[in-house]
Amino acid sequence: MRIHEFQEMMRRLYFHRDSKRGIEGTFARLKDEIEELGEALQEGDKSALEREFADVIAWLASLANITNVNLEKAAILKYDDKCPKCRRSPCECTS
Amino acid sequence: MRIHEFQEMMRRLYFHRDSKRGIEGTFARLKDEIEELGEALQEGDKSALEREFADVIAWLASLANITNVNLEKAAILKYDDKCPKCRRSPCECTS
Repeated sequence: MRIHEFQEMMRRLYFHRDSKRGIEGTFARLKDEIEELGEALQEGDKSALEREFADVIAWLASLANITNVNLEKAAILKYDDKCPKCRRSPCECTS
Repeated sequence: MRIHEFQEMMRRLYFHRDSKRGIEGTFARLKDEIEELGEALQEGDKSALEREFADVIAWLASLANITNVNLEKAAILKYDDKCPKCRRSPCECTS
């Protein structure tokens, strides 16, 4: 599935709810999901970990919807098969 | 671009670096990127905001690579055109 298609699915499912919740509230929920991902990384349950990754990309896409950002376009613009900092593939940055 | 293709691009660019950095260190960088996204949301510069969204999905995909998670599969498994909680489209959850 394309990044953009996933973002559009999130729009169908959640735009009404998250646009009402607002940018600040939706960003706060994304941060909560990041915390849950961090916990799942400690616990070692692969299915739970996969669900947390899914939640993070879902909230990220929904936040992109309510801020009028095309996540796929933004991702490809910055990451065009080269590292945006050193312009190499693979990246040769030292940090 | 498919979510999986983007994740594979991140593998080519960053797997060598992030697998050396480790899961904890890579997760810490993802959290830093979330903070930067939060700052960009306050500032109102659209291009900067797009770059921060790009960075978050990039670090998320790289973290998925070093934890052997297929981000596209995980996303589609949980979000199958219905809300995973209420099983409706659009979502009818109350919170």
